[in-house]
Formats: sequence, structure tokens, C-alpha cells
Amino acid sequence: MSKTLTTRKQDYSQWYNELILRGGLADHSAVRGCMVIKPYGYALWENMRDELDRQFKATGHQNAYFPLFIPKSFLSKEAAHVDGFAKECAVVTHYRLKNDPNGKGIIVDPEAKLEEELIVRPTSETIIWSTYKNWIQSYRDLPLLINQWANVVRWEMRTRLFLRTAEFLWQEGHTAHASKEEAIEETERMLDVYANFAEEYMALPVIRGIKSPNERFAGAEETYCIEALMQDGKALQAGTSHFLGQNFAKAFDVKFSTKDNTEEYVWATSWGVSTRLIGALVMAHSDDEGLVLPPKIAPIQVVFVPIYKGPDSKPAIDAKIKELAKQLQAKGVRVKMDLDDAARPGWKFAEYEMQGIPVRIALGARDMENNQVEVARRDTKEKQVMSMDNLDSHIVDLLSAIQNNLFDRAQQFRTAMTTEVTTWEEFVDVLDNKTGFVSAHWDGTPETEEKIKELTKATIRCIPLNNKLEAGKCILTGNPSTQRVLFARAY
Amino acid sequence: MSKTLTTRKQDYSQWYNELILRGGLADHSAVRGCMVIKPYGYALWENMRDELDRQFKATGHQNAYFPLFIPKSFLSKEAAHVDGFAKECAVVTHYRLKNDPNGKGIIVDPEAKLEEELIVRPTSETIIWSTYKNWIQSYRDLPLLINQWANVVRWEMRTRLFLRTAEFLWQEGHTAHASKEEAIEETERMLDVYANFAEEYMALPVIRGIKSPNERFAGAEETYCIEALMQDGKALQAGTSHFLGQNFAKAFDVKFSTKDNTEEYVWATSWGVSTRLIGALVMAHSDDEGLVLPPKIAPIQVVFVPIYKGPDSKPAIDAKIKELAKQLQAKGVRVKMDLDDAARPGWKFAEYEMQGIPVRIALGARDMENNQVEVARRDTKEKQVMSMDNLDSHIVDLLSAIQNNLFDRAQQFRTAMTTEVTTWEEFVDVLDNKTGFVSAHWDGTPETEEKIKELTKATIRCIPLNNKLEAGKCILTGNPSTQRVLFARAY
Repeated sequence: MSKTLTTRKQDYSQWYNELILRGGLADHSAVRGCMVIKPYGYALWENMRDELDRQFKATGHQNAYFPLFIPKSFLSKEAAHVDGFAKECAVVTHYRLKNDPNGKGIIVDPEAKLEEELIVRPTSETIIWSTYKNWIQSYRDLPLLINQWANVVRWEMRTRLFLRTAEFLWQEGHTAHASKEEAIEETERMLDVYANFAEEYMALPVIRGIKSPNERFAGAEETYCIEALMQDGKALQAGTSHFLGQNFAKAFDVKFSTKDNTEEYVWATSWGVSTRLIGALVMAHSDDEGLVLPPKIAPIQVVFVPIYKGPDSKPAIDAKIKELAKQLQAKGVRVKMDLDDAARPGWKFAEYEMQGIPVRIALGARDMENNQVEVARRDTKEKQVMSMDNLDSHIVDLLSAIQNNLFDRAQQFRTAMTTEVTTWEEFVDVLDNKTGFVSAHWDGTPETEEKIKELTKATIRCIPLNNKLEAGKCILTGNPSTQRVLFARAY
Repeated sequence: MSKTLTTRKQDYSQWYNELILRGGLADHSAVRGCMVIKPYGYALWENMRDELDRQFKATGHQNAYFPLFIPKSFLSKEAAHVDGFAKECAVVTHYRLKNDPNGKGIIVDPEAKLEEELIVRPTSETIIWSTYKNWIQSYRDLPLLINQWANVVRWEMRTRLFLRTAEFLWQEGHTAHASKEEAIEETERMLDVYANFAEEYMALPVIRGIKSPNERFAGAEETYCIEALMQDGKALQAGTSHFLGQNFAKAFDVKFSTKDNTEEYVWATSWGVSTRLIGALVMAHSDDEGLVLPPKIAPIQVVFVPIYKGPDSKPAIDAKIKELAKQLQAKGVRVKMDLDDAARPGWKFAEYEMQGIPVRIALGARDMENNQVEVARRDTKEKQVMSMDNLDSHIVDLLSAIQNNLFDRAQQFRTAMTTEVTTWEEFVDVLDNKTGFVSAHWDGTPETEEKIKELTKATIRCIPLNNKLEAGKCILTGNPSTQRVLFARAY
């Protein structure tokens, strides 16, 4: 690493962009707003995806795959959905290219115009419910518990790597149920899966809550969400789970015959998380030296860096590193050995700090003599000398300690950055100067929420689940309120 | 199952279509030419994908993800590539929808026209090599061994589920090398991975060969392929691996500095297999009762079907099935238990034959008394009574025997259906009446190959690797030839 990063204090946004690029997670592409996910970033996504997939299957879901394209007319079928999604979309209008008759490369063949335009899916409720109509006839076909891993496109005007890109990768669960109660139970179950995944694997503490009507998914009766806090005091929505009622069943005429042989519309849920989670992960834990990745999902958990003293020392040091690495791998640890003798150790140290590898183990000729290694943890940058004996168990314990420390640190930060306020002045002051989550009374009307957003750019992130009820006065209008809700400026 | 399938003899094509639908692998969608991959079909794809992915990683490759969209001008940059791919494509021309001012739903916003149209990727060489330009400077950056799992779109006019659909899922490897030799070695290595996967996991014997210039990938110097034979005597290309020379490096100006500090263009390969493999699998092994899936990739390897004798018998039989299933699962066997007492065993038997589950185990009250079960294998439909003692080991052996039998059966079929001919009359007679692979002399010219295709619809499937050289005369022109090549009509 030749240059240091812009620091978080200097420019948080610039720090983030540099870090994504220099940490090797992603790159800009030749296509406006679309990113390339680089091998290191993709390996991180694979670890996240595989664990989520395991949890989806453990809760009874199966994967399937639905078309990339959605006929334009489908978007209009659900009244609220059309307002939310029939906006910035990639629209396919033609199906053929041909050579320019004037010899200027290739052009779109004007004769190959589609009768109905196709939209590259921004989300798949419509195409999936048009299919479910053929799959669901009886209560015996329910519940239908399906998930899809896919790419989606939303033509965002202002894009940021991982946080907001025109194309992104995600999963979208789409389930069908015989009763409202069962659908709500499913919505809540998947929110729990997301929350547990964020906390246990990403070391990211999240608030579970429901969205206010203004922030609801277009077409949902209720949107549940998990909200996380970034180091700059802004909130980030890390996952949503929607109870869709019978809206899509009605839009696509999906009915089932009950045990009593009556016909009813099917109840639905949908839920999703995306590569945006990687942005959240980076912004929650990383520091001015580079990425800080939680061990459970880090592509590489331990890197060995030899400290050679002349070429003669290489064979013995390399052999010892390979032996120790093998012991670690036998315990399921993901290990990298950097046995390149062209680069200096100091350069490598900086490089692996940039990449956020949780544990670095350095080993030189002196260490060989003393049967020890130098172990550096990425989260606290503490170094300690460890015996080579039972190194594998000690490293497994250390990885676990790092995972816990990242979570605790983030949770302490969130606690410190959550402020209860009672007046408008306090509210604005906290938003502008302290930042973070602001817990405040709201009169429950969309108008007030909208007005607060206009005045402060803060939105209601969620009404926390199991929220304490208490009488109070709305910070803006002074009207009576029954509970506090969480406001923040957000990504 | 209420109705039997159309048989292969009656109408092979109809049999295939019915089987894909009734076996639960895929469904048609509301979007022309696009299919829905149903959970059972997707589980099959996951098993195939996971094993391929494991082998890609074991050979040093990493996954990454590149944009779905390709700027139109990129397709023109490689001269041969443009002819092959700038044809039937999905073209994105606009990026916004809006409400029709006349109140007729939503329309494409004419003001939101892209400056340059975007093509939904039919393959990703161009977007990837435009990125590699930024990633490759020195020999130290090579080799670059990257794979992508993705969806691609080719606007096919006549589509068939899995075999030819507008959108399909695939993987595409794109590697960059410092020398021609190393790139060719990589091309051949990945062909081997594909061939071994097809034979060991799909039980699908394949011929490894190279394509004639007419059948080469647009932009390749050499296309290697694996070719399989279907039960109707038609060939199917099951995977390709391309040596791209320096064509894409030149088109996108990707140079590297060598150890000697000179600048050279990078050497490239690309290779891919797709969900088309599922079509090959179905057509190679299945029969008139339904799917026949190789145990190694079957989503469910063993299904237990209880034979209840009145409701009183259910608890004891179910308990025994759960016990046996647990033993099998402990050996890594994928098991389903169908403990539904509403459906009749005969109906279930037919259903699981349709789904191609390799082994069915039936268990009734009498079997309980005798400590035995009835085991039916799907490939030969043989039934045998087995003791419950050590059932797990016997089933593991049986699954292995089924896997081997499927391969042997397919290989015997291919041997019987490969015919050497010396005259044009024989050639046409075999193609029309016997079908299968026809091994014949060809004078090596594209013109003759084209003429043969016109006259017979047969194409050169490949020039087998390590082909025996022998002097002969071209079946069409009588001109001298140095070797036989494999012809067939193909999917």
C-alpha cells in the first residue's frame, strides 16, 4: 500500500469509496451505475449467501428461479406497487441488432420492436404471482415457501458502490399461505432470520421494527425491517420482510379452495436482503487503516506472513508455516499463506490490514528458535506472542473473541448514539451535532412524518417491535402520542 | 399421476416437454421464451452447480460478478464476436416509465432514452475484458482465473425448456495468461473438468473434441467441446472451452509488462456450461415412466413410502421409517419420507417414478414383522426385499450401482449408435434411419461442411481429441482426407 486512506473524520464518504476499491471488494464498471464485484468481495458475499441459504432451507424454504423480465402491464396490476416500482427501470424495447446499412457499426433493428416492452425486474412479486396462479389450487398446495437468488435493476440516479447501484444481487423470498395469521408468522420468522444473521454473523446489532406507512414497501400491508447504525451516525436499512395481505393474490387472481371447499384469496409475504449488506458491514466496523471483517464471514480468517532473514531461512520458515496452517485448516479455519519473498513484511502487514483479515500471524527465524509466533488481531491491533503449541485452539478462541468484540463495540456505539429527546430544538440539535438514532414522540400521521423529513432530512427508521407504550407529545405538532419511534438520517 | 406420458416412440419431442413439466423441473412463464425453474429443477441445478464450483475452486479459480448490461459499442470491438452475438439480443433503450397522460396505465417515458443502448449480456467477454484492462499491468497480475455464475439472454426464436430459452443460467470462466501455451493448457484443463463432471456426476458419457472452424465460438482461435448422445440419436453439445488467443486483449487493449520489461498482449480463454445440461440429463437417461436421475446429483436419492393397513398401523410404521431414514442421512443420503396417509401407495409410486428418485423403499405391517423392506430401483425397475439390518450400507452401495449402471447403459448406447461409413449413400442412410454419431472422412474445407449441412442437416460435432489419423476420401467430394470426424444431427 503506497498511500494511506482518507480518514473517516476527513471525509466519511470518500473514506468509504476508497476502502471499497482498495480493499478489493468492488470496482466501477463501464456501465453507468453498475459495479463489478471483485473476487474478494464476491467471496465475502458467498459466505453471507451460503449461511442465509442454509437458514432459509432450515426454515422450510426451497429455491427456484423466475424470469429476469417482467411484461410492462404486470407492474400496473397492483395499484400501490405501480407507484413504487414503475419509475426508474431498465426497459427492453427491441430484440435485435443489425449492421448499420451506412457502415457505422451496429444499430438497433427498428423492425424488431417488442409488442409489449419488458422491464428488467426491480423486484419479482408480479412475475411470481402470475406463476403462482398456476401452481395454487387447493389448501394442499399451501404454504408455498420459495426463495430466489437473483440480480435486480433499479435505475438509480445517484449511485454508491454496494449501497445503491443500478444492478445488485439479492435474494427475494415469496411465500403463499392459507391464512393471514400464518403469513404474518412467516413475515416475523424471516425478520428473525435476518436479525440473527446480522447479529451473529455480521456482528451488526440491529433494531427490529415496523415501518411507518410512508416507508412501507409498495404493495405491502405491513413492512418489518432491521435497522443498523453506521459509524457516521446514519442509519441503514439492512433487510425487510413484508406482509402483503391478499394484495397480489387479488391482482393476479390467485385463489385456493379451503378444506371446507370455499374459495379464498391467498395470503402473501415477501422478504429480501441484498449486496447492500456488504456496504453496511464495511461502514459499521472498518477503520482508517482499512476493512475490518467479522471472522465468521471473512473470506480469509488468518494470514501467515513470514519474516525471512535472507534466502537461506525460507525453506524452514515456509515448512513451519505450512505445518501450522494445516493444523488450523483442520479446525475449519480459512487460511492464507503469503510466502512471496519479493515483498517486504511491512508492506504485507499494511495490505492485509487494508483487506481486514481478522488475524495475522508473523513468524521469523527468532520465533522458530523460541517455538513462538507473533499474533496480531485486526480489530484492536493488539499484538501478542503465542507458543506454537496448541496454536490452533488459541486461534479458534481468538477468532471467536474478535467476532464478539466487533458486536459489542458496535452495540456500545449504538447505545451511546441513541438519544431520547422531548423538544423540537433537542431533536434538531441531536440530528445536526450528535447524529445517530433519535427516539422521539410522533403523532402518528403521515403528514407530520413528511414535514419532519422536509425540515430535517430525518425519516422514521422504524417503530421498534415490543415498543414501550408511553404517553407523550409529538415533537413537531405537540399532538398526543402513545409511543416513541426511532428517527435518523439514513442511507 | 392420472395420465401416462406420451412415449418416446410416439413423439420424442412431446415426451420431453411433458416430462419437464410433470417431473416438476420447470414451467413456462408469462414472458415469451423464458422459463421458470421450479424448486425440484433448481435443487438439481444446485447440486450440479455446487460440484462444478468446487472443481473450479480446486483448479485455482475465484468467482466474481460483472454487470448484466453491455454497452452496444462493446459488441463491435472484436470483429468475429460482433457477427456471432450482435444479433438476437434484448436491447435496453430507456430507463424510465411514467403514467400515461391519457390515463391508460403506464408508458415508457420518451424523454428517458439512453444515449447508448445497453444489451443484456448474451455472454460477457467484452464487459469483462474492458474491466481486465484496469486489473492487468504486469506479469505479476497473471494468470487471472475468474469465473462468474450468471443469467444470460439470447433472443431465440424457437425455444424449448432448458434446451433453448431466451434467458438461461450458466457459468462463464474468463481467464488471462502470460503465454499462449499456458492459455491452451487452461482451455484443455477446463474441458477435462467438464468431461469428468458429465461422466462422473451426470453419468453422461461425452466425446472430447475440437470444433471445425464453422462451429467455432465467435472470437475464438479454437473451440474445445464435449458432445453427448441423446436417446433419439441426436447429439447435444454439453459444454465448450475456448482458446481466445489475443483477440479480446487486442480489442480492449489489454497489455502486460513481461519479466523482461517488454509489453505484450494478454492471452485469453473462456468456458461455460449452462442449465442446458439439465435438458441433456433428462434426454439421456429418462424413460416412458418419467425422469431417471443419477444418484450423485438427484435432489432426493431415496424416498420412503409406507404401506399403511388402517390408521392403527401408522405410528409404528412411521417410527420405523424415521429410524431408517436417520441412519441413511447419517451416511449422507438425501432422503424424503412421504408419511401422508391420504394418498394411495400406488399413486405415490407413480409420482416418484415420474420424479426419477433413484431408490424407493416401501414398508408395510408385514415387512415390520419380518424386519425387512421392499427396495425398488428406478433405473431398472427391479425390486428386491432387503433386511432392515445394515440397510444403510446396502442402500449406499445400491446408489453407487445405479450411478454406474446409468453411465454404462448410456455408453453402450453410444457405442452401438456410432457408425463408421465410407460412402455418401451410407452416410445419408445412417443419418435418416439409424441416427446417432456418424464417423466419416471430410476434406477439411468449410465449403464441404456447409454443403453437407445443407443436404442432410448434419453438422460436424467435433474432431475427437487424440483422433486416429488415417488416409481416406471425403464422403461428399471424394477429396483426400487425413482423419474421420464425427457428424450428427444435433440439438
